[in-house]
Amino acid sequence: MISDLNQVLSTNARGMKKSEIRELLKLTQDPDIISFAGGLPSPESFPVKELYDILCDIMKNEAQVALQYGATEGDTLLRTLLVERYNKMGMNISLKNLIITTASQQALDLISKIFIDRGDKIIVGLPSYLGALGAFNSYGADMIGIPLDEHGMNVTELEKTLSKLKSENKKPKFIYIIPDFQNPSGITMSKKRRLEIIDLAKKYDVLIIEDSPYRELRFEGEPVDTMYQLDNSGQVLMLGTFSKIFAPGFRIGWVVGNEDILDKIVVAKQSTDLCTPPYTQRIAARYVGQGLLDNNIKKIINLYRDKRDAMLEAFKQYMPEGVTWTEPEGGLFLFLTVPEHIDASKLFMDAIKEKVAFVVGSSFYCNGQGKNTMRINFSYSSIEMNIEGVKRLAKVIKSYL
Amino acid sequence: MISDLNQVLSTNARGMKKSEIRELLKLTQDPDIISFAGGLPSPESFPVKELYDILCDIMKNEAQVALQYGATEGDTLLRTLLVERYNKMGMNISLKNLIITTASQQALDLISKIFIDRGDKIIVGLPSYLGALGAFNSYGADMIGIPLDEHGMNVTELEKTLSKLKSENKKPKFIYIIPDFQNPSGITMSKKRRLEIIDLAKKYDVLIIEDSPYRELRFEGEPVDTMYQLDNSGQVLMLGTFSKIFAPGFRIGWVVGNEDILDKIVVAKQSTDLCTPPYTQRIAARYVGQGLLDNNIKKIINLYRDKRDAMLEAFKQYMPEGVTWTEPEGGLFLFLTVPEHIDASKLFMDAIKEKVAFVVGSSFYCNGQGKNTMRINFSYSSIEMNIEGVKRLAKVIKSYL
Repeated sequence: MISDLNQVLSTNARGMKKSEIRELLKLTQDPDIISFAGGLPSPESFPVKELYDILCDIMKNEAQVALQYGATEGDTLLRTLLVERYNKMGMNISLKNLIITTASQQALDLISKIFIDRGDKIIVGLPSYLGALGAFNSYGADMIGIPLDEHGMNVTELEKTLSKLKSENKKPKFIYIIPDFQNPSGITMSKKRRLEIIDLAKKYDVLIIEDSPYRELRFEGEPVDTMYQLDNSGQVLMLGTFSKIFAPGFRIGWVVGNEDILDKIVVAKQSTDLCTPPYTQRIAARYVGQGLLDNNIKKIINLYRDKRDAMLEAFKQYMPEGVTWTEPEGGLFLFLTVPEHIDASKLFMDAIKEKVAFVVGSSFYCNGQGKNTMRINFSYSSIEMNIEGVKRLAKVIKSYL
Repeated sequence: MISDLNQVLSTNARGMKKSEIRELLKLTQDPDIISFAGGLPSPESFPVKELYDILCDIMKNEAQVALQYGATEGDTLLRTLLVERYNKMGMNISLKNLIITTASQQALDLISKIFIDRGDKIIVGLPSYLGALGAFNSYGADMIGIPLDEHGMNVTELEKTLSKLKSENKKPKFIYIIPDFQNPSGITMSKKRRLEIIDLAKKYDVLIIEDSPYRELRFEGEPVDTMYQLDNSGQVLMLGTFSKIFAPGFRIGWVVGNEDILDKIVVAKQSTDLCTPPYTQRIAARYVGQGLLDNNIKKIINLYRDKRDAMLEAFKQYMPEGVTWTEPEGGLFLFLTVPEHIDASKLFMDAIKEKVAFVVGSSFYCNGQGKNTMRINFSYSSIEMNIEGVKRLAKVIKSYL
């Protein structure tokens, strides 16, 4: 073995910390624990029965394609179906505007890889998706957090920051946004806010990364247009994934965007994993092509709406005064805020003793704020378990008041 | 769209060139062309029939595991089976010494990510695997090439380089080696040579990356111990993959190595793709667990041995004097050298007109040498096509003499 591993590591690797949450999550694997911590879809949402026939058909008719290497851009059949699906939703894209990635996390990695030099500024929400913060950090990005309000990223703060950065000649590489049912807050950005942010991005000549894993899981109300669609000039790169609407175990996501940028991502992907599994891509293509995806999404929406409703009801019933939470219109998460004097990471350890788990909110804040917040997942456990978990959590919180 | 994409790109992305070969390979997709260019396994090698039952069983009994998110380190069942398999082969590793990656290409990417700062030196063979050169380049590595002879990397040249780099205080981050049936040369490194290089690596305190995708495809002769095994001190990271012995379409590889290094790779992988598809991992685990892999490898060896024999026979019969080639004892490739005055990239265009393709050898040389060489794949096409392709190629080469 070499004498000093640390000395041989890249600067970026020395800055990658073992995720604290990952370590905490290990504590939640005790089967007696009701975990609100993961971001896992419900196993009930997996279309196991419909998959049988597809799997057999692929082995019978297209094994030689599915089991072989594939194109870095992705399976042309799957790409074509996704493009058609988006265009039916009112977008206007073609094959060259969509590539497949090994789920959204790879898209975040590749985007970081092609844009971020160590020390480059990027803008993220306060709070924002942990896995994105991890990807940006792994390339040494200097993240600037902009607070969210009930309509999404605060525009006044955003412009202030963009203007300051411009005056310092430190243009950020991009603004990272999850407009629909944001992770972790559950907040959906209003159309007005989307338009304002697009205007700012154009004014300051900055790209927007629109991460959209939950968009189709809307329980009520009208969908707001995607930022990609509202812009329609190539200012926005939009990330999609099958992980929450089909099966995360297949690891399939995609990027929609300007052709020249996608070209760069493809070159980067080539040396990263050559191609996303052609086998799971072909399964997804057949699944989408047979019109099964939309039915599955309807099923998931009904499932998760019930879970959210029961969760909100339980909060109302059991949470002590001083505790507040968001009421998402879709997605997998809501965000709980306890009185400021309570440290959620300390509370976490007591919650584990009471056999309930969550993710400490500060993990989602690039600046370490949010110490009195928690991300609560309602998609994974059953309604009964969710209610029981809320009871346990309320008990622990009360002990801190 | 932003005003100047190039200005926004990272330094490394500006250095990533669209692979010339990838562009050339597009020319080879004409179905009339006999392509020796790809590195594809033969479709006949895919165990389609045996997969039916496994796929059905997984959907019946373990869909909830296979379709869900999984651990970043990989499926514990698959890891356990691979560890047992290596230990049966005489190695001495445990679970903590093996992690799963999204095929070997991801391992190359993650190793680059944790070790390479822009400008760092690394050592590679002249020639060496193109996809590895691409990965190293994507992190801005400064690659130093060491020539190969018939026993592998030249030890005198290697020591000269290591000593020079040491005197300049520029210790290389690692030495990248494919000891068995090297890509592109087909050369297998002797045991003596492996031991000498391990000694040098220890003396100069440098890691060895042993990339081993073809090792089990040995057509004759005795296998040489892996460098990992010969070292047994953690100086070597060994990469394995199912791509050539099972199915590349599943995208599963692994890294064997020192626990502390694997830990760093896992942290990097976490933000790169969260996990390799749990679904394809579980397929592989069931396939290996039922003892089917070893039979499949035997089948592939017989298949490829016949192809190699026919290819070598055709070379003898059709190639003009002045053309030489390697005679690999296994793997997928051999390497052809034409007289020095012939430029293989020019010849490539004429070969395409004659409906035969190869990869220009210089693509595998980090220093641009090898202009009169070609990589020839013999695994993909049928014996008849291989012979016909050699005839066509010989005709083109003759026209240059």
